[in-house]
Amino acid sequence: MREPIDNIKPEVRTVPAYTLAARPAPVKINQNENPFELPASVKERVIEAVRVRAWGRYPDFDPRELLEALAAFSGWRADGILAGNGSNELIEALLLVTVGAGTRVVIPEPTFTLYALLTRILGGEAERVGLGPDLEYDRAALLLAQAAAPALTIVCSPNNPTGGVLPLDGVAELCAASAGLVVIDEAYHEFWGQSAVGLLPAHQNLIVLRTFSKAMAMAGLRVGYLLAAPELVREINKGRLPYNLNFFSQAAAVTALSEWPALKVNIDRLVLLREALRTELAALPGVHVYPSCANFFLVELKEADPQAVFERVYARGVLVRDVTSYPRLSRCLRVSVGSEEENRALVTALRAALLEVRGAPGRPGRSA
Amino acid sequence: MREPIDNIKPEVRTVPAYTLAARPAPVKINQNENPFELPASVKERVIEAVRVRAWGRYPDFDPRELLEALAAFSGWRADGILAGNGSNELIEALLLVTVGAGTRVVIPEPTFTLYALLTRILGGEAERVGLGPDLEYDRAALLLAQAAAPALTIVCSPNNPTGGVLPLDGVAELCAASAGLVVIDEAYHEFWGQSAVGLLPAHQNLIVLRTFSKAMAMAGLRVGYLLAAPELVREINKGRLPYNLNFFSQAAAVTALSEWPALKVNIDRLVLLREALRTELAALPGVHVYPSCANFFLVELKEADPQAVFERVYARGVLVRDVTSYPRLSRCLRVSVGSEEENRALVTALRAALLEVRGAPGRPGRSA
Repeated sequence: MREPIDNIKPEVRTVPAYTLAARPAPVKINQNENPFELPASVKERVIEAVRVRAWGRYPDFDPRELLEALAAFSGWRADGILAGNGSNELIEALLLVTVGAGTRVVIPEPTFTLYALLTRILGGEAERVGLGPDLEYDRAALLLAQAAAPALTIVCSPNNPTGGVLPLDGVAELCAASAGLVVIDEAYHEFWGQSAVGLLPAHQNLIVLRTFSKAMAMAGLRVGYLLAAPELVREINKGRLPYNLNFFSQAAAVTALSEWPALKVNIDRLVLLREALRTELAALPGVHVYPSCANFFLVELKEADPQAVFERVYARGVLVRDVTSYPRLSRCLRVSVGSEEENRALVTALRAALLEVRGAPGRPGRSA
Repeated sequence: MREPIDNIKPEVRTVPAYTLAARPAPVKINQNENPFELPASVKERVIEAVRVRAWGRYPDFDPRELLEALAAFSGWRADGILAGNGSNELIEALLLVTVGAGTRVVIPEPTFTLYALLTRILGGEAERVGLGPDLEYDRAALLLAQAAAPALTIVCSPNNPTGGVLPLDGVAELCAASAGLVVIDEAYHEFWGQSAVGLLPAHQNLIVLRTFSKAMAMAGLRVGYLLAAPELVREINKGRLPYNLNFFSQAAAVTALSEWPALKVNIDRLVLLREALRTELAALPGVHVYPSCANFFLVELKEADPQAVFERVYARGVLVRDVTSYPRLSRCLRVSVGSEEENRALVTALRAALLEVRGAPGRPGRSA
């Protein structure tokens, strides 16, 4: 007999849910959030705009003001931009209109897990392409994968959770070699200082994703955007839900963009703090720090068990990200760049944890 | 040669986009919004909660406080509830995990167009079941359609844009007859005063959708929820994006629920206004008003061209909804119940428009 649950697609039932256990901590550096809040004046301007707005009325069908502001900020045309609830929603809209049963999607790994998860749920085939020996993008392998004529190739650059980038000439090369769409997820681009948006005029198959959740210090408000040729945007828009973005998040995004110089100061601070943290982490015994163009580091523990270290660091009030379940990262933790005090707390906690775990009986290593 | 646009699925390219032209108007009764704003004290409580919250931090992975509040409000268990950006997002999550190539979805028509649009984009087959002679649900036809073993049957009750309902014994009958999932979209249930939530314990294949966009006066904030057996909710949750609901909308929903008696007063007012408006509209010459359990009426114009009437009413500052493109509604307009003043403006404008259009040369009628 058919049970209610049998109406769920098999490809969904076999997929594990994306999940993250909530763990409160005084120092929370597990989600690559910006430790510096928006200036209070920016928040007050948003609150005033919200107070006078009728809450019972739908947002505009097209968030015109936001799209114009994003166009001015990014240097791309407003009719080539879509806004959504975080870039996640735009990844979903994009996959919804491109991926069906058997559609091939080239996805480097390890990377942000949502691409492959949604591809599988939609019945598509995630074609995994490994990173190079130092966890950098393998440009030759990405080009080679185009032979299978994928509908999409998704590259997160800077890459979460490694911090590596696909240089812009690599993006151009990939676009030229692909008959499919090339998606560059630029969630962390502000920390790198480079962007593929400048390649949009020359490459009609390029799609760029961005978010307000990291450098823009608005993770709580869920705003992201997608940039591409207007012809593509019109079709991707069919996968976007009407009235998707609430008026509060829209107002906050528009206001934040108008105060970009104030936000940029904090981004520059974070980049300086990142370089200082890199030096400190690299000096710890038994630790390898991968180069990062983002606001986090992938930290490889050469000897100590990473899950044991994770727990010892957490016991000292510092919550980092356990990424040991990612391919090739079975010895790694990911740490976000925090404020000066948070970074100091991380280094202190990590140093102490490494000493403790080295002295403790080892746990069996996990396979890569 | 394969062009970038060729990577969009054919079923998407052939589907028209869901769209609604923005038309400013002094009296806006085209989206079934609640004309009565939330009490100012509720809005201030939300704003205070938001002011002290860190905007740069992600919402909780599970919006525990909101889910608990929804459980208390609805009388259903918290682990059987999902919250999203309007019920639209939960319709999408549900279809994402159930619909693939060729999946059958029974959808009465005319109804809310998003169900069929998303079903098509996902490669599924929308099996249309017509309404009865007076645009009421055809219970026998819905039962008969179960013979084709659909994965889903989606019933909007009260139905948008007709205002009719599937009585609760009809919902129970449908659940019992179906091996698939039965989805009751209760976007307007507060105006009816009945709900299928009480049937959840007895029917493991029942899924109820609700929204804060109508009776709850929060269309601008995009909050909806889904209620079902926890076993189903765990799977549907895989189609929901992580951190989907921003903290502002969460705070507003929690606060609104805590002030339910104040909101209920406005809902009761709207129900009284609805009954008064029904009498007024029915008294207009050449107008048939369908019975409605929601906060809107479907108005059929027996002689006058509805699009001409729409424009004449709009010229008088009243924006209603042109639903002539829906099956069987080629002579209909949909009007939301507004405030007393708005309803008066509608009746005055409609009366004048009918007189004008009757005197004007007719336009050729559109086929049903």
